[in-house]
This record gives sequence, C-alpha cells and structure tokens, in this order.
Amino acid sequence: MPEGFRIATRTQRAGQGGRERPALVGVDIGGTKIAVAVGEQGGGIRARRRRLTDPSGSPADDLARIAEDVRAALAEAGLSPADVRAVGVTAPGPLDAERGVVLLPPNLPGWRDVPIVARLRDALGVPVFLENDANAAALAEWHFGAGRGLRHLVYLTMSTGVGGGLILDGRLYRGVLGSAGEIGHMPVEWEGEPCPCGQRGCLEAYTGGAAWTRRLRAQAPEDGRVAQLAGGRGHVTPEHLVEAAREGDGYARAELARWCDYVARGITAVVMALAPEAIVLGTIAVAAGEMALAPIREQVAAHVWPHLARDLRILPAKLGGDLPYLAGLSVAVEALRTQGAR
Amino acid sequence: MPEGFRIATRTQRAGQGGRERPALVGVDIGGTKIAVAVGEQGGGIRARRRRLTDPSGSPADDLARIAEDVRAALAEAGLSPADVRAVGVTAPGPLDAERGVVLLPPNLPGWRDVPIVARLRDALGVPVFLENDANAAALAEWHFGAGRGLRHLVYLTMSTGVGGGLILDGRLYRGVLGSAGEIGHMPVEWEGEPCPCGQRGCLEAYTGGAAWTRRLRAQAPEDGRVAQLAGGRGHVTPEHLVEAAREGDGYARAELARWCDYVARGITAVVMALAPEAIVLGTIAVAAGEMALAPIREQVAAHVWPHLARDLRILPAKLGGDLPYLAGLSVAVEALRTQGAR
Repeated sequence: MPEGFRIATRTQRAGQGGRERPALVGVDIGGTKIAVAVGEQGGGIRARRRRLTDPSGSPADDLARIAEDVRAALAEAGLSPADVRAVGVTAPGPLDAERGVVLLPPNLPGWRDVPIVARLRDALGVPVFLENDANAAALAEWHFGAGRGLRHLVYLTMSTGVGGGLILDGRLYRGVLGSAGEIGHMPVEWEGEPCPCGQRGCLEAYTGGAAWTRRLRAQAPEDGRVAQLAGGRGHVTPEHLVEAAREGDGYARAELARWCDYVARGITAVVMALAPEAIVLGTIAVAAGEMALAPIREQVAAHVWPHLARDLRILPAKLGGDLPYLAGLSVAVEALRTQGAR
Repeated sequence: MPEGFRIATRTQRAGQGGRERPALVGVDIGGTKIAVAVGEQGGGIRARRRRLTDPSGSPADDLARIAEDVRAALAEAGLSPADVRAVGVTAPGPLDAERGVVLLPPNLPGWRDVPIVARLRDALGVPVFLENDANAAALAEWHFGAGRGLRHLVYLTMSTGVGGGLILDGRLYRGVLGSAGEIGHMPVEWEGEPCPCGQRGCLEAYTGGAAWTRRLRAQAPEDGRVAQLAGGRGHVTPEHLVEAAREGDGYARAELARWCDYVARGITAVVMALAPEAIVLGTIAVAAGEMALAPIREQVAAHVWPHLARDLRILPAKLGGDLPYLAGLSVAVEALRTQGAR
C-alpha cells in the first residue's frame, strides 16, 4: 500500500471534525459519459452514477448538472456534501491541474478555460482536485489495481488512443504543464505513419484503437474470419481481431503479433529511460490477455538490458469497468495523501 | 537554486557542532583518471587533485590510496577530515548506490562488489555517499551548471558513450537498481546498428563518440578534410569532424547533420515521455556548439507537440573540465539536501 494511505489515515484519525472515514467523491468527465462515485480511501465504492455527457454548450449549466449528480450520488449513499472530504475530478486534457482549469477538451463544446475546480468547490463547499484522465487512471491502477504497492510504475491506456501516466518514486510525475507520460506519442518509426496528434510514427499511430481500426477496415481480408465476426470489413474493431486471433485465424494472429511488436518498442524505450518496476497495460491488452502479453514480454526482454528485464513486470490493468469511478476517487485520495505529506 | 540548498543551509546554520560552512569532498573515480575536490555547498572548489586511476589489482590498496588523495587535497586547503561534512563518490556503473557498493566497473580490475562507501567512511571517519557517473553529472549540471534552478531536467553525456541522468520534480530519479536515465540505450532504429551494450539500434550506436569514431574511420573520404585534419583516416575522431564541419567541409556537414538527426530522435522520445523543462547535452554537443544545437532544436521542435516545444530548452552543458570535481561534490550536496528534507 502506498505510503500516503497511512499518512491520510493518520491525519483522519487525528480529528477532522471528529468524523471517522469521511467520504470521497470521484467525478470522471469523459468524452461520451460522466461517472460519479462516492467512495472511501481504500477504494470501496458506496454509490455510483453514470450518464451521457450530453454537453449543453454552456459550461456553467454543465457544471451545475455535475454538482447535482454528486448530490444525488451522495444521497444514494445516505450522505451529503458535508460528509465529503475531497472531490477528485478527471477530464481529458489539455488542462491545468495546478490552477484547476480545463483548457479545451475535444468533446465538450463551449468548454474553454473552464475553472472547474473553483466552480465545483463553490457549488459543493468541499475541496476539489483536478487531474487529466491518463494520470488519473495511472493513480487508480496504482492505488487500487495492478500497480498496488509499487514504487515505479508506468501505465498505458491502450484504448482508442494511447495515453500514459508515470508513478515515479512513489508519486505521480506530471512534468511541464502536466504533460508527462505521453508514451503513446513517442516515435516508434521515425517519420512513420501519420498520427491523429499531428506527428508521425507515434506509438499510438500503430497501436491505438482508432488507428488500428482504420487499418483493419482497410486491410482485413473481405471474406476472412475477422470481417465475418464483425459482419463486414467496414465494421471491424480490434475486439473482432482479438476474437479471431483467439480462434487461431492466421491473418488475425499476424496482425496481433505486429501490434505486440510495436507495443514492445514503446515499452522498451520507456524501460531504458525510466527503469520502472512495472508496466500496466489497459483495454486492448486486457482484452487480448496472455495472447498479447506473452509476446510483448518476450520482445521487451529481448530488447532491454538483462538486469532491467529480470524483475520487470508487464501486467494487464485490473480495474476494468470500475476505472471511471476509481480514477476520480484516486485523484481525491492522492490529493489528500500528498497534502498530508507536505 | 534548488530548494535543498536552502534546507542544507538552514540545517548548517542551526549548528552542526558550531562550524559554519564545513567542507565537502568529491571523488570521481573514472576509468582513466581519479579527481578529488575539496569544496563548498555552493560549488566553490578550494583544492583539487587529479591522477591516473592506475588500479593495483587490490581494491583495498586502491581505496587506501584514494583516502590518501582526500587527505592530501584537504591539507592543500588547510583542512583535515574533521572539517568534512560529507564525501560524494562517483564511479561508473553498475553500482548499488543505496548499499554503497561498486559492483563490477569495466576499467578497475579486481573490483567486484567493493563496499566503497563503508571503506572510505572507515578510513576518513566522515559520511560517504555513492552515485553512478551519469547521475552525478546530471546533479552537477543541475546544482552548478546549465540546469541551475530548473525542476525537470534531462542530462545526456554525449561523450564516448551516451549516458543520462534525470532530475524530475526537483530530485534525482534513479529507478530500479539506479538504472533510470539510460537514454543512450533507447532504440532510435528498431533492430538497427549493433551497440556496445549488446542491443541494437540504441541512440549510443548512432551518436556515441566510440561508435561515431568507428564509422568515421571506416567511411570518411581518405583524401578529405576530416582525414587531413586527423593526419590520416585511421586517426579521425569526432573532434576532427566537428572542426571540418566548422570550416564548411561538405562531408563533415552531412555527417554532423546525421548525428544531430539521431540526437533529435532520442530527445523527441524523452520529451514526449517526460515533458522536461530542459535537455542538457555534454561533450560532443558542447564542442560542436550552435552548429549542432540549432539543427537539434529545429528537429525536436518539428517532432514534439507544440506546447512542449514552446518552452523547451536544449542547452550545452556548462561545467566542462570542472565536471569531474563538481560531480563528486554535487553527490555530497545532494545527499545532505535530501537528508535535510527527510
């Protein structure tokens, strides 16, 4: 268990208005859905709500509605804002975590330079903390998932895009403008395939779900198993590819091997630079399981120094569908932990 | 000025036996030379000694001689071991900084698992701290050189080999087994040129002085300016290449551009992963100056995200010939700083 839990627990026991285990709230503002969780420092979830993001065009209205969601979730747990110690909010970047401002999220029309922390704090009367989604996911897997108890951990989303978060020396490393951990945009082929980010040859351009889907829809055999599972090549997703590979389909296996090779390139670079204890891989890697993890581990072991390969763990993420709830909660947990340590 | 200076100064003012500004000692055990410095927390050097490493085959004898070097340097400064607050030792890896043990340095015959910290502490009666050479150089450039006052800094040696050290969130990040920062062994061409490290396609295989020298001696035009400056192709070093490029020689300029391109690949990966404020480049980059730094900056700016490129500084290292002395001293400074902060 990371050190901070102890610190937070100690602080909490020391008083805080005499309340034992006050509640934490997590709010995950995704491009399509908003998830709200009421939970505890150890990761227990007492109430959860989820709805479509459905932005109104007015950030003020959107935030008022999110505050209502929080109140409703608290009510469901028999609590009120007065029982809440901290609210952790996660949103897609770019954002300024320190100032608590969402800058220009791609899927929230009208949201530009929105001081979400100040607004929600005013609406709820409790401390609010903000973190970008990839960093929050890294915190969640570290506090509550596959990375529990580790000191140096790199988390990669491996979902539509490839985001990342770095836990180094037992704390989140954010870098300039909170931009560290963009492992998905390290080059794996110099001047290679164009990436949605505007650069070329990024890890995401080879292994991100969106890029891979485009490739599969253009290249999967029209009459092959992958297209068949999808009901037509134009509907193929990485999930169909993984399913066909699991069945032993040759094309699918070769495509998955290529995907694993590129993931291994990114991990190799990260391991040489950061010498972490573990790499935690989300979504696609979780869906593919050992079928992908085994060749990734093998490729990485062949390309990093033996003493770094020896104890390196390459693990599937553990939180699955709980991630949106625990991401927000872990931002609150981390804020209390690092404040406690100051 | 990094925060720790203040902490150390405060601690020191608070007492420490009533002595103001007690001395620090730095010992740099290089493959060919040993440098000893007596200095102060702010980086002032009061005495310095340097000699050939000249290993005897017996680590005990070698260490006794190093302890004598320290005493002699102290005497030169009018001091004795009783005036020393801490000794910082740097040595080539692999080593275990935490246990204070040098494991198997490539150029010190007979040195295997040598508990250098315990031995020197016993010989001198003062606290001794150990760090590998690349990490120590990063600390030195951060405390006293090009990286002064920064919070997130990546240092690259760009010398015979390409070593690196990471200052993240205002402290040295070591990773598992102190192995973080091996930027020189991140792949820049997957399965590319063989690297002395045993892997292929590493940054060092394209930009390290040893690798580059081999390439130049095999490929520089026999009757070209580079070979002429060296007195024959078989004697060419990167210094001759840089000199010929400065004169405008076409071959030399193209080779330097290729070198810069690979350096930029490595830096691009590092910037996307770590979002540092600055990259500090040593030796070859210092010798080539703006002729190399300008194209490296341009290439990196073209390949990282605009908001990361905007404020990124790519700087030449500043310490030059003082580095061996300040490397050891900065290990002592950092040890006091982080102990003070604990």
